[in-house]
Amino acid sequence: MRIGIVGFGLIGGSIALNLKLVNRSVEIVAVDPDESNLEYGVTHGFCDVPRGTLGPDIAGCDYVVIATHLDTMEAVSEELLKLLTGHELVMDVGSVKGWVVKRIKPLFDEAGVSFVPCHPIAGTEKSGAMNAVRGLFDGARCIITPSGNSDEEVVRARLFWELLGSRVELMDPGLHDRIFSHVSHLPHIIAYALVDYVLKSERSALDFAGGGFRDFTRIAASSPRMWIEIFKRNRESIKEDLRRFIGVLERYLDDLENGRWEDLRGVLEEVASVRSQMRFFNS
Amino acid sequence: MRIGIVGFGLIGGSIALNLKLVNRSVEIVAVDPDESNLEYGVTHGFCDVPRGTLGPDIAGCDYVVIATHLDTMEAVSEELLKLLTGHELVMDVGSVKGWVVKRIKPLFDEAGVSFVPCHPIAGTEKSGAMNAVRGLFDGARCIITPSGNSDEEVVRARLFWELLGSRVELMDPGLHDRIFSHVSHLPHIIAYALVDYVLKSERSALDFAGGGFRDFTRIAASSPRMWIEIFKRNRESIKEDLRRFIGVLERYLDDLENGRWEDLRGVLEEVASVRSQMRFFNS
Repeated sequence: MRIGIVGFGLIGGSIALNLKLVNRSVEIVAVDPDESNLEYGVTHGFCDVPRGTLGPDIAGCDYVVIATHLDTMEAVSEELLKLLTGHELVMDVGSVKGWVVKRIKPLFDEAGVSFVPCHPIAGTEKSGAMNAVRGLFDGARCIITPSGNSDEEVVRARLFWELLGSRVELMDPGLHDRIFSHVSHLPHIIAYALVDYVLKSERSALDFAGGGFRDFTRIAASSPRMWIEIFKRNRESIKEDLRRFIGVLERYLDDLENGRWEDLRGVLEEVASVRSQMRFFNS
Repeated sequence: MRIGIVGFGLIGGSIALNLKLVNRSVEIVAVDPDESNLEYGVTHGFCDVPRGTLGPDIAGCDYVVIATHLDTMEAVSEELLKLLTGHELVMDVGSVKGWVVKRIKPLFDEAGVSFVPCHPIAGTEKSGAMNAVRGLFDGARCIITPSGNSDEEVVRARLFWELLGSRVELMDPGLHDRIFSHVSHLPHIIAYALVDYVLKSERSALDFAGGGFRDFTRIAASSPRMWIEIFKRNRESIKEDLRRFIGVLERYLDDLENGRWEDLRGVLEEVASVRSQMRFFNS
């Protein structure tokens, strides 16, 4: 099996690393303009064909994964389509799916190349193949948002992620974007905003931050480039969530101002109970 | 050495557990109305004298730590003062210090008993002695907010926390409350509010939460009783922080609405850079 990975960052690198752990004979063709990503993969045995730009090696791969930044995905797709044979199954790993279905998939449809929109729910706040994580996808969900795909295409995509240990679910792309605005995009905005607030209000307070703050703000170290790309492309959902979340904070502020402690405590009891019963897989 | 611990929860229990690890011959007198806390301590070798209510065993201890809920601290202090000999050094571990200095310390001053307000920056989202953590205070900060204390009292308190591995700092109680509103109380409110929002807006989204959400909302499983007590007693700082934090979110929303991506990215770059350079001790 030969796998092309375009964009050899944390996700692309982790896909390669974990495929190799499943089966050493899988051949990895990795494309990335950043030589340090490729070098790390070669040195650590999870990149066989390192390439600085797209070229003929990508043709004839069984799977091609686009794991670039969202803002280069269109250009990369157009480049790719000049090279592919039509045998390959192309997948992306973007955190926004409505935009991928609307702007990227049609390019492949027009060329008669299979493209299945995917979103593995995995990652860390770090970037680059040097931060690839063993077992990153193992037990984690991977959402596939088919859009005019054949059953066979979906089965091929599913097999790929299941090979990495993922629990695959199919979902409507619009629903996907609303759900991940709630549980991922909005929390990222809030975490950035909190660090921003403390930084500008009383920077020395950061010296006294404990474990709660550490975990709460871990995601505020994530790549701003990547997150701006996501905010742009899931803007409507995120705007609505942010607006409504501000409304929740305003209600809490009102409770504090009016000393409605029992009301607030009732709300927090429900929240704490739900949160403490949540179970997380490796994701 | 004989140590009295009034309120044998996560913090009280962890103090006992870790003192025993330093020196097995330290004798622990633990007072808690909840028998399961005491039983756990006895079974696991970190409670020598379990007591359901305050009684004569507490008299003559070298140190007495009040680790109860904030809302029982006044009543507990009055009870204690009927029993103590004046030899003991009393400390609390509350997350709010202005209130302790204003409402609790004067009770001890009046009785001529040494009381030093302390706040170990340690804990988890769990409660109870059965969740006591080995090494909880090791490398963590402990803030002492002296208020009319003698140097000798402060030195005695410092020694206690240093025995547990803590890095002790002295601070003004008002500054303490502003700093911990920023890095602890506000983040707790926000974490509760986020889970609250998702729960009521699109509950099924919680099924798709990944590692970012998990870490971000860990503290939303914390005891609402404890947090309401803190919100009440540090209300002014928290209200101001919450009001100003809402302002930051409104600016971000405005950036999203007006597509000011480069401005927003500039802000996030600074935040991500600061956050990724932060180093956390065991706290």
